[in-house]
Amino acid sequence: MNSVVQTRKEEIIKTAAKLFKEKGYSAVTMRDLAAAMGIKAASLYNHITSKQDILKAIIVSLAEEFTREMNVIKASDLRAIEKLKLIVALHVEITVKNTYGMACLNNDWMHLEEQLEHYLQLRKTYEQDFIDIIESGIISDEIMDANAEIIMFSILSTLRSLYLWIPKKEAVNANDLAETLSRVLINGINK
Amino acid sequence: MNSVVQTRKEEIIKTAAKLFKEKGYSAVTMRDLAAAMGIKAASLYNHITSKQDILKAIIVSLAEEFTREMNVIKASDLRAIEKLKLIVALHVEITVKNTYGMACLNNDWMHLEEQLEHYLQLRKTYEQDFIDIIESGIISDEIMDANAEIIMFSILSTLRSLYLWIPKKEAVNANDLAETLSRVLINGINK
Repeated sequence: MNSVVQTRKEEIIKTAAKLFKEKGYSAVTMRDLAAAMGIKAASLYNHITSKQDILKAIIVSLAEEFTREMNVIKASDLRAIEKLKLIVALHVEITVKNTYGMACLNNDWMHLEEQLEHYLQLRKTYEQDFIDIIESGIISDEIMDANAEIIMFSILSTLRSLYLWIPKKEAVNANDLAETLSRVLINGINK
Repeated sequence: MNSVVQTRKEEIIKTAAKLFKEKGYSAVTMRDLAAAMGIKAASLYNHITSKQDILKAIIVSLAEEFTREMNVIKASDLRAIEKLKLIVALHVEITVKNTYGMACLNNDWMHLEEQLEHYLQLRKTYEQDFIDIIESGIISDEIMDANAEIIMFSILSTLRSLYLWIPKKEAVNANDLAETLSRVLINGINK
């Protein structure tokens, strides 16, 4: 695909993610999307085949990006706490870069059709990898001996909510935010 | 209102919260609700006037419960960390008791109509009270000197996500969960 066509498709996907965030996936029509792009609805179909096609492009590509990065982190020989810091930084970085996409991932994944199973499998594996890292940290005595699933839930809930919070900040420095969040999530807040 | 009528209204509200969770507020009709209750749609109107009326009953009463409890916690002369532990326990307790209601609060608050402003004001005040407690803990040297808003966001995101996670557990002991979560959120996870 040539780069002009690719760019237009990316633009459609970005605009759609913003509309899905604002109105909810179900309420957005291809006509709304064309209007937001300032083009005719018919022209959209040169680039994408359906709303479902866009949803898939947004969500599955994000989920696959998380999976790829988790595999890199898993395979590294870092200590568990360092791996967790990389996971925090990964969520901050992706959410700062693609806030609307992350909103769509969180709010609209249940509207996926033939890709739903694939998405759920990626999510399940990601959560299990997360738990495995925490458990390895408990065994190596880096992490306190508490229920690994509660720890995973607690950290991941915060990371998954970043899309709600980042847009309210005027200028987020991803490195600063990742560092403060890592301190809060890993070292706790008490002195 | 006599207690039989009150009980039937509560039953309608509970059933509605479950349906809203499963299908989304917009997709649920009064007819669906009547079917789920095993009664005629017309009978529903003896107890409630509209779907919006139910949404208000679910969300506003929860938000007011959080506000009342936050006022008690705020007014106490406990140290900041102890106040935060009470807030964690409050969220766990309410979410265990009314998981569908909390799902509705989180997913459907934007569908509130004339009560939307009231709800948003309660939420804003609650978040500000939360930040004030954290800031008082930073001043009294109980809490590390980091951005109070990031700390609030981090803890509250986890607490607000409890409704997603609690139903997956077979039998949740609210006290155990509140205690482990307090340790994780306040003391951190590292040894």
